Amino acid sequence: MTLPRVTVLLAEDEPDLPGLESLEGQARIHQHRGIGGLAPRLAETDVLVVTDFRVEALERAWPSPCPIRWVHATSAGVDALMIPPLRDSDIPVTNAAGIFDRGIAEYVLGALLLFAKDTLGNLRYQRQRQWRHRETHMLRDQSALVVGAGSIGREVATLLGALGMDVIGTARRARQHDAAFARVHAQEDLPALLGDADYVIITAPLTRQTEGLFNTDTFARMKPGAVLVNVGRGAIVDTRALLTALDDGHLGGAALDVFEQEPLPADHPLWDYPNVMISAHMAGDAKGWRAALGHQFVDNFERWRRGQPLRNPVDTQRGYGQR
Amino acid sequence: MTLPRVTVLLAEDEPDLPGLESLEGQARIHQHRGIGGLAPRLAETDVLVVTDFRVEALERAWPSPCPIRWVHATSAGVDALMIPPLRDSDIPVTNAAGIFDRGIAEYVLGALLLFAKDTLGNLRYQRQRQWRHRETHMLRDQSALVVGAGSIGREVATLLGALGMDVIGTARRARQHDAAFARVHAQEDLPALLGDADYVIITAPLTRQTEGLFNTDTFARMKPGAVLVNVGRGAIVDTRALLTALDDGHLGGAALDVFEQEPLPADHPLWDYPNVMISAHMAGDAKGWRAALGHQFVDNFERWRRGQPLRNPVDTQRGYGQR
Repeated sequence: MTLPRVTVLLAEDEPDLPGLESLEGQARIHQHRGIGGLAPRLAETDVLVVTDFRVEALERAWPSPCPIRWVHATSAGVDALMIPPLRDSDIPVTNAAGIFDRGIAEYVLGALLLFAKDTLGNLRYQRQRQWRHRETHMLRDQSALVVGAGSIGREVATLLGALGMDVIGTARRARQHDAAFARVHAQEDLPALLGDADYVIITAPLTRQTEGLFNTDTFARMKPGAVLVNVGRGAIVDTRALLTALDDGHLGGAALDVFEQEPLPADHPLWDYPNVMISAHMAGDAKGWRAALGHQFVDNFERWRRGQPLRNPVDTQRGYGQR
Repeated sequence: MTLPRVTVLLAEDEPDLPGLESLEGQARIHQHRGIGGLAPRLAETDVLVVTDFRVEALERAWPSPCPIRWVHATSAGVDALMIPPLRDSDIPVTNAAGIFDRGIAEYVLGALLLFAKDTLGNLRYQRQRQWRHRETHMLRDQSALVVGAGSIGREVATLLGALGMDVIGTARRARQHDAAFARVHAQEDLPALLGDADYVIITAPLTRQTEGLFNTDTFARMKPGAVLVNVGRGAIVDTRALLTALDDGHLGGAALDVFEQEPLPADHPLWDYPNVMISAHMAGDAKGWRAALGHQFVDNFERWRRGQPLRNPVDTQRGYGQR
């Protein structure tokens, strides 16, 4: 019996995806680092696991004919992975749905409290050794709009709702009942919803429908002083429009974990804004996340081996997880 | 009929306590600013409302014989107000229990997320224009010890519990069942409890039992890397011992809203610690707090006028609100 060949594609400096030793005797595992020798490796791969990879290299090295029978992404977003030979194939794709939900939701809650309690002001006065009493906001009395009501957006809404916030969401289609939200509207209703939200949180995947969704017009419709949080994908926001909305004081601030260009270049103007908090695409990466990714793959591998339906299938045409 | 004379003592720069115009026809209200003319005013006062005041001046001006029949503090803590002529009198004292609970609970949650998500690290790297991916902590997997299980401590515990944290409390006496906490221990058990908590949150009032409770020995018993949050009173913590615990790296950080000396002097070493977040005794002062204080007093005044039991009585011997 020939064991299926599993290739795990890693960045040069990335450690092995953990926990795969439990597949010994069921698969031949190769943890492949960097882009050297990629084409011959893919030509001998049954199951491809992509953790963090330069996708151009993947496209160049894609085998033809293609022995790959399943692709698993150890990320929630699969936008970059949807290279044409994969997107237009019948190869099933799965993602890491669920793993990042809670970590991202805690990050978002922390970001909202950072602004509601003016912690950035505290830290500024602290550097100046100034004692300045101010009134702050009660998050319980404020409202949030979550753009993207998938599993991450729903977990964000659940946590914010637990604090007593009024939370509405948008999704591709309106939804009648969703316990996580007061209401879920269709994305095309977004312009009419923006004016009521103290916080707008982007948790959507990057698709043709969300690319550049936050532009000059979108920011103009937001409530003056509102705060933007982006934990979705950088390209959902037009960064120039964001800078203008910050410059003219219309936007109260932003917490950004994702950017049009990552890493954010050292000379980018965003670094300097006192009312912007920048993190390095790490919102969901809470201690134990890589072990959870490994465990999730192993679980799905056992389903795949038994011919059972895979968990967390991705709609390769739409470019995100199926609900 | 002679109307009762209500004196509201305010700091020099403090605006009137709002909402008292609704007592027109029921009381004569004097909003008294600063310490000038205090003694003659107190000698003609039936109901004294203390919002933020230099207590030494109050003690000097305290009338004898004393016409004051009720003292209401628009704060949760009444430690400074307990001057001997009041403490040893039969004058009922009430406080602003409840008004600050939720604001402080949100502040504490924000402080925990500030450390769990290493937001201070994000802001430091941001100033250096450095993109640095790190793993952070999931608050859900961490534990909190709330020192002081009164109404503020219970609200803190409720919010942290809503995030899935394991939350225990300490109070003067152990309590069998308290829905806000997994368990409430007696304060004397504190030393044995400190080693298990990732976050230790002080919400206790300042009393003989809590003054200096956090000293060299207490910090040594805390879990290495644990974070201290103080929203109780500054003098519960020995600041020198705190600085030492920060210097030797045993403490992971601190969020401090109260200090032994307030305002914190400009030359105090605490301002400079990169893992300390300082706020100006404002954790509970969320928008609308002063209106809520005025409303709470008016409500209690109507009870007092009708001879009904006052809400939020203070145990003047113990120096904090009765449960």
